[in-house]
Amino acid sequence: MQAAGMVHNLLSNLPLAGAEESIMPILERRGFRIERIVSHGHATPVDRPYQQSEDEWVMVVAGAARLWLDGTGEVELAPGDHLLLPAGLRHRVTWTTPDEPTVWLAVHIAP
Amino acid sequence: MQAAGMVHNLLSNLPLAGAEESIMPILERRGFRIERIVSHGHATPVDRPYQQSEDEWVMVVAGAARLWLDGTGEVELAPGDHLLLPAGLRHRVTWTTPDEPTVWLAVHIAP
Repeated sequence: MQAAGMVHNLLSNLPLAGAEESIMPILERRGFRIERIVSHGHATPVDRPYQQSEDEWVMVVAGAARLWLDGTGEVELAPGDHLLLPAGLRHRVTWTTPDEPTVWLAVHIAP
Repeated sequence: MQAAGMVHNLLSNLPLAGAEESIMPILERRGFRIERIVSHGHATPVDRPYQQSEDEWVMVVAGAARLWLDGTGEVELAPGDHLLLPAGLRHRVTWTTPDEPTVWLAVHIAP
């Protein structure tokens, strides 16, 4: 978690590629939680989409990704791309760059 | 404001340089508000530092900036750099890149 006035870099000290996505908390307050997520070619299994009880706002900061959204289909995400994933929406990460880390900023929003 | 499932890009449709920083709301919920701030060489007047009643978390997404923080001095910010500005902390933007826009993501946190 973040101390007041201290500068940290979202793109520094990235974890090595692992079996799972890497999640690091940045700031947690009443009502929301900011996290950094780092993917190394990870994708969500087709038979296990995410379906969350909370709204989540995400932005790709580095790398690239594709997301499948129930009812919309697949969307491509480049750095700066952001979207709101409403609670209950089934979605999957279908692709992230295999040759470089994909860094997401995620804001989990309390219901 | 952002519709669910629609992809927007924080670095697209940047405003032209103007007399003031440009602020665009991205998402507002109980407890917090996410904004995009675009600076074009703007700096805060020395005699009018910011001093806010709310905590604010900021990250530089593109460009570069320098911030002066009361009690800390000046800090340099490059893309990915983020920090928490606690309520009451006097601070100033002392410099942003004059030749390209500096794009910030700001999360204003309700007290």
